[in-house]
Amino acid sequence: MTAPVAEAAAGGLSSSSLSAGSLGEQFCKVRQQTLTLCQPLTPEDMMVQSCPEASPAKWHLAHTTWFFETFILSEFLSGYRPFHPDFLWLFNSYYNAVSDQPLKKLRASFSRPALDEILDYRRHVEAAMQRLIDGGLPEEAQRRLVLGLHHEQQHQELLAYDIKNAFWSNPLHPAYKVGEISVATQNVAPVQWIGHDGGLVEIGHQGEGFCFDNEQPRHKHYLEPFALASRLATCGEYLDFIRAGGYERPELWLSEGWDTVKAQQWTAPLYWFRDGNDDWQLYTLRGPLPLEQILSTPVCHVSYFEADAFARWAGKRLPTEQEWEIAASNLPMSGSFLETDVLHPMPAAEIDGLQQMFGEVWQWTASAYLGYPGFAALPGALGEYNGKFMCNQMVLRGGSAVTPASHIRSTYRNFFSPATRWHFSGIRLANR
Amino acid sequence: MTAPVAEAAAGGLSSSSLSAGSLGEQFCKVRQQTLTLCQPLTPEDMMVQSCPEASPAKWHLAHTTWFFETFILSEFLSGYRPFHPDFLWLFNSYYNAVSDQPLKKLRASFSRPALDEILDYRRHVEAAMQRLIDGGLPEEAQRRLVLGLHHEQQHQELLAYDIKNAFWSNPLHPAYKVGEISVATQNVAPVQWIGHDGGLVEIGHQGEGFCFDNEQPRHKHYLEPFALASRLATCGEYLDFIRAGGYERPELWLSEGWDTVKAQQWTAPLYWFRDGNDDWQLYTLRGPLPLEQILSTPVCHVSYFEADAFARWAGKRLPTEQEWEIAASNLPMSGSFLETDVLHPMPAAEIDGLQQMFGEVWQWTASAYLGYPGFAALPGALGEYNGKFMCNQMVLRGGSAVTPASHIRSTYRNFFSPATRWHFSGIRLANR
Amino acid sequence: MTAPVAEAAAGGLSSSSLSAGSLGEQFCKVRQQTLTLCQPLTPEDMMVQSCPEASPAKWHLAHTTWFFETFILSEFLSGYRPFHPDFLWLFNSYYNAVSDQPLKKLRASFSRPALDEILDYRRHVEAAMQRLIDGGLPEEAQRRLVLGLHHEQQHQELLAYDIKNAFWSNPLHPAYKVGEISVATQNVAPVQWIGHDGGLVEIGHQGEGFCFDNEQPRHKHYLEPFALASRLATCGEYLDFIRAGGYERPELWLSEGWDTVKAQQWTAPLYWFRDGNDDWQLYTLRGPLPLEQILSTPVCHVSYFEADAFARWAGKRLPTEQEWEIAASNLPMSGSFLETDVLHPMPAAEIDGLQQMFGEVWQWTASAYLGYPGFAALPGALGEYNGKFMCNQMVLRGGSAVTPASHIRSTYRNFFSPATRWHFSGIRLANR
Amino acid sequence: MTAPVAEAAAGGLSSSSLSAGSLGEQFCKVRQQTLTLCQPLTPEDMMVQSCPEASPAKWHLAHTTWFFETFILSEFLSGYRPFHPDFLWLFNSYYNAVSDQPLKKLRASFSRPALDEILDYRRHVEAAMQRLIDGGLPEEAQRRLVLGLHHEQQHQELLAYDIKNAFWSNPLHPAYKVGEISVATQNVAPVQWIGHDGGLVEIGHQGEGFCFDNEQPRHKHYLEPFALASRLATCGEYLDFIRAGGYERPELWLSEGWDTVKAQQWTAPLYWFRDGNDDWQLYTLRGPLPLEQILSTPVCHVSYFEADAFARWAGKRLPTEQEWEIAASNLPMSGSFLETDVLHPMPAAEIDGLQQMFGEVWQWTASAYLGYPGFAALPGALGEYNGKFMCNQMVLRGGSAVTPASHIRSTYRNFFSPATRWHFSGIRLANR
Repeated sequence: MTAPVAEAAAGGLSSSSLSAGSLGEQFCKVRQQTLTLCQPLTPEDMMVQSCPEASPAKWHLAHTTWFFETFILSEFLSGYRPFHPDFLWLFNSYYNAVSDQPLKKLRASFSRPALDEILDYRRHVEAAMQRLIDGGLPEEAQRRLVLGLHHEQQHQELLAYDIKNAFWSNPLHPAYKVGEISVATQNVAPVQWIGHDGGLVEIGHQGEGFCFDNEQPRHKHYLEPFALASRLATCGEYLDFIRAGGYERPELWLSEGWDTVKAQQWTAPLYWFRDGNDDWQLYTLRGPLPLEQILSTPVCHVSYFEADAFARWAGKRLPTEQEWEIAASNLPMSGSFLETDVLHPMPAAEIDGLQQMFGEVWQWTASAYLGYPGFAALPGALGEYNGKFMCNQMVLRGGSAVTPASHIRSTYRNFFSPATRWHFSGIRLANR
Repeated sequence: MTAPVAEAAAGGLSSSSLSAGSLGEQFCKVRQQTLTLCQPLTPEDMMVQSCPEASPAKWHLAHTTWFFETFILSEFLSGYRPFHPDFLWLFNSYYNAVSDQPLKKLRASFSRPALDEILDYRRHVEAAMQRLIDGGLPEEAQRRLVLGLHHEQQHQELLAYDIKNAFWSNPLHPAYKVGEISVATQNVAPVQWIGHDGGLVEIGHQGEGFCFDNEQPRHKHYLEPFALASRLATCGEYLDFIRAGGYERPELWLSEGWDTVKAQQWTAPLYWFRDGNDDWQLYTLRGPLPLEQILSTPVCHVSYFEADAFARWAGKRLPTEQEWEIAASNLPMSGSFLETDVLHPMPAAEIDGLQQMFGEVWQWTASAYLGYPGFAALPGALGEYNGKFMCNQMVLRGGSAVTPASHIRSTYRNFFSPATRWHFSGIRLANR
Repeated sequence: MTAPVAEAAAGGLSSSSLSAGSLGEQFCKVRQQTLTLCQPLTPEDMMVQSCPEASPAKWHLAHTTWFFETFILSEFLSGYRPFHPDFLWLFNSYYNAVSDQPLKKLRASFSRPALDEILDYRRHVEAAMQRLIDGGLPEEAQRRLVLGLHHEQQHQELLAYDIKNAFWSNPLHPAYKVGEISVATQNVAPVQWIGHDGGLVEIGHQGEGFCFDNEQPRHKHYLEPFALASRLATCGEYLDFIRAGGYERPELWLSEGWDTVKAQQWTAPLYWFRDGNDDWQLYTLRGPLPLEQILSTPVCHVSYFEADAFARWAGKRLPTEQEWEIAASNLPMSGSFLETDVLHPMPAAEIDGLQQMFGEVWQWTASAYLGYPGFAALPGALGEYNGKFMCNQMVLRGGSAVTPASHIRSTYRNFFSPATRWHFSGIRLANR
Repeated sequence: MTAPVAEAAAGGLSSSSLSAGSLGEQFCKVRQQTLTLCQPLTPEDMMVQSCPEASPAKWHLAHTTWFFETFILSEFLSGYRPFHPDFLWLFNSYYNAVSDQPLKKLRASFSRPALDEILDYRRHVEAAMQRLIDGGLPEEAQRRLVLGLHHEQQHQELLAYDIKNAFWSNPLHPAYKVGEISVATQNVAPVQWIGHDGGLVEIGHQGEGFCFDNEQPRHKHYLEPFALASRLATCGEYLDFIRAGGYERPELWLSEGWDTVKAQQWTAPLYWFRDGNDDWQLYTLRGPLPLEQILSTPVCHVSYFEADAFARWAGKRLPTEQEWEIAASNLPMSGSFLETDVLHPMPAAEIDGLQQMFGEVWQWTASAYLGYPGFAALPGALGEYNGKFMCNQMVLRGGSAVTPASHIRSTYRNFFSPATRWHFSGIRLANR
């Protein structure tokens, strides 16, 4: 399977120019995409929760439905009858203002409700949503619907992370999907350094389209001159880092990173493993693959600590999120997204200029995830969506090969703890 | 559902008077009973692994099959083709001499092989076993087949423990089986003390029937005079202990027990919980039940620490395994077993004499699980079956309401760590 | 003991206008201050290491000496004979480029070398330093000497934290120093909001005086208009937060903060405890004190999570480090420092304008601790001093009642993990 | 320093033929021996608590004094004024019936009270004890005094364990005492097997002398014929076990032992380490020593798991405590004890017959530590002395090179968790 490049759908999930009708279509499409993602999975697969960050696929199906039920139907559809009274708290993830929640690790015990019942739940809520949409949505309900769709897309991406980890944890390492990943070329153009003059810029979302609360307010920010690498760091380059003793040289690492390397006994990115001949293999959603066949693809599943160490070894640094955003702001949103169905990052093209800014792998930035100046969370329970995680996380930008194409923006701020790596995360270098 | 009393089948799983034919029938019967136990479970239910002691039900189906394949077919059926080469190590539990094994906690990630494939595996192995049996079993193969059947029965019991814990962990507390547990009487006869003169006795299995290696050799043991309570301690009596501050009085507890009480914040046996009115409920395999409706049933799911503290509070002690065995040796093997399908211990009858010695709940003894004088483990990998666990465990005797009736003997030695309580374990007092 | 206000010594520890003579005097003075701090301590006190963040006092005496030996004498004093060959690695804290180091927790086992030997070590190194200074210091050696003095001052402050925690951990709660803390007034002026217009400002150290590498380079930063509270939040105000259920309302907390509150069972700042009458007491370096006697003093020993939750409860926010620095840049450096010997933060004066910006308590900012644009660590092993901690930490500003007065600057960036609170840390609110 | 062999003092600490005068002398002698043990220690050394099992030496000095104050003076000396009201709970180890206790790990924070104050405490209590003794002791007080002396001797031994671990944890590995250990011969006689016919024997203490409650009641026990190795297993023999892959062969280990080997990464007994030439060294209380110089000495500091694995590798087993007791019951109590001041086990003599049964190293038995038939703990708080530890521990017999000679008996039951090894524990094999 070679990788087509998807152009992120113009006019995607936005509340800007919505008619009720088109919003209804988007609702159907996003909901369907979640099911499509689960199509290769058995009910048993959808029970697995293989690491503390992950949830079972079935839970994702239910929770994304809970979101619409809780924040829209319960409030805006008069006479709405919840599908099941217990679901109102059972599938709450972390919204303390809504209800108490089961401990996250208990999600692996949710064999009941059965998958079939969860699918009924989805249909029940979808039918009610359709009635609500048909009846004409109040503005706040529209806003929440769009939020709910982006929420569901986030869980589509998480579902890809979680099922990859689940299948990897299985000692048999089964593939999520058949069809080999093939890479047209092992030639990858040398990195060019794409400069920017800096100065006083504006950062953050503006305009009519949808954005999360954490992308606002748009605000001024002063930038020194900088340069970004024209493409992402490759597996081949990362292998050089490993061979240069990268995981054995404390001077390359943040102190907490080095502690993590030793405690976790890291010697390579997640999903890299050695086969019987001691050669590197890479586990993908399409099964294991010899690393040497995909040296030109972007390195993926590295922690912030590894990205930072790699940059230091290379004599460079990671970009700040503002540098990244300014550089990305006028670029077309093309790259490998979930819809290309490769489910793995693809190599850069042998062309000039800044590329691979969207799709492929989330790009770790040197910026901590904090509120922008004047940041205000959404009112009510939805204020818990983003704001309460603004601590001990780093910002990632650009989306990945498992991000829905209509989900991403140049102002989009993803965030993860610096030690996690079950997500599709990689490295773009910066220089000054 | 009221509780019939099952008489343990005479001539049960023994290798004594076996014709190939009858052994084949027993094989079919035991294998079928495992499937029957799983009948109320969905493939999703069979994925849950809710505590470190437990395994998913699906794993039990596979591992019990692996046992026959590994220890009998691979060795005794010429030309036998293993069902799947990876299953030989994938479903190994702890036999280091056979192969490496996946970490126990990874069993929750075995969504593949699917349940259907595991059931195919069972049929494949059963067919091969049938061929082997039909062809006439060598003596060693006969011995191993009988061992394999007892092994499978042990896993039937574990399966009941594990699925109870799985459904309990589910915040919805679903029932494994419908049908309410009803107890005919709340009257329970006062404890009588059934005395024994002690002296030099013989302990351990003798005769032709099957036993585990840890029940042998039969050996002499000197006993002081002692008396056993005529029946098991009840939920009502245990509630008295709780109300008397049992969980708050360190002087009643072993030091390690008291540490456990505080660390785990125990205030009652496992599966006891308070409902919205602060009344005690008890979770059973047939769902939750008000405690006051079953005060006369034996207390169940207590740790050794709790059994020991209860005994001290009562001014008594727990029996040694030798006292228990001598007292039980001539009693009929009647009681609630798995086949009664109540799946919960039932009250004592209002009769004289020693009762409830078999079935209902495993009875903690004051004896550490160690080898008898002259103990020798089975040769080869099967020597790992029992011997390597002879440390930091206490002996329990008598079987439980989820033990197959044909599995138990008066010489049978069960063993668990003193802090565990997901098993059906209860209390019989002793006095001197 | 009432609190004098110390004016930070003008022309303090700086390498700007140094003659060898005056640098020698400063060396003696700083080294002496460490010993003075230890004067109330017995050799036994100096062995205690009561939390993972802390080190024994004796270790601080040795490590600060090691710094001069390793980075100056070994390199710049020809013929220098190390005091003890093992000390070169034994007292290394975390400089991987110098040598391996003992695990931090092992420092509590360093009964040998004895305190007397450590004091000999100090004198040996001081004598050698004096010889080096007398002979005329090369410029790089001068720079490192000044760095070494600031390093020792940092450890003076840590020593105060550590010994406070050590004495607090002792069930007898002994006082480090006698002499009661008395507060002149319980009247504290209402908070005024001191505004600033924002705009493009310059942040970071400039000029001749000493600064750490993390205070540079000076760079432009754009600020929105903001206002700072005229004084620090008081114990009285924090008590209001507690009484309003602050520790029981998840909506006030960052997600990780709320997890910490529950896991650690926090209900108040560190060193607050309830006496036999259920009244709040506060443990200080001068022993326990009824909270009601010092309600007007700044709240101290709060984590970032608590500071952030308090701000949210108050409808305000924490300042960024840039806002803080701009507001502080022209203020006199007055406040309670280590030299006032109160060893506890003192109330605000009843005057107008921004006060308590220096001394009293370190002020948590909303800024993550990261490198400034263009940040470059010192070359060599000294590059490990600050840079490798730039992850998962928040910036604090302003110094505390146990900071040496000559140690602090408006550009000074302190940093701690958001969950720690054994340091003297408090709260200044910001508003927009 | 070569090893004299101490004959355990006849008529040692017993309450049998006590005049008040001789009891007073014993009291002085035992109390003095504790101080003598501490003579090489500085106040700083006496602060170290280097593993969870250990306590600081200073705490031992205080706690042994607390024992006399709490259980004798407070009850039997009218008008007795406690030295310090807080000491009554501060130095309580684990007697819940007396008072709450500080967490064990907090003992490392007891820099106050200072050592000098603890020594005053000792003198205060000793003077009061002398008054009480002079005035004539009630019988119960006499009994408790003798118990208190044995208690103090137990802490003398623990003190040796703890200070050895403390100095070992110190990266400099200082010696507790100077004076090299030298071993006269590396020749060690081949093991002889000393047989016993078994039969119905009597186990447990009888007669007038002192014993702990756990050595009673004396009771009948039936033994099969058995044989004991004539001497202890040596370091040389244990080295053979290591070289034969002992730590890499799971079939030699109990399941929990194998888990411990992997989790703790054990490859040798505690205090064995490899020097720069990869040669084995052994840390002793007199400093490190090349293993090859003491191959003939008994292996020491092995866990039960290691002792059991060694026995299995050798094709033998560990003796039960009853076998050991019967074999030891008529032997002279000679061997290396604390008073020989070698502080390390010495080689067997080249003579016939059973030797090294007392002193040298505690001998792990295959018996779990449980109450004898009819066991009754002492009344009151002193009942917590032994009884509450009867779970998850194994019995050791015979004393060690750091046991006071007058402390040991053939009926003496020591007990430790099977995974610990900071105690002087070794191996005697049994055969049948």
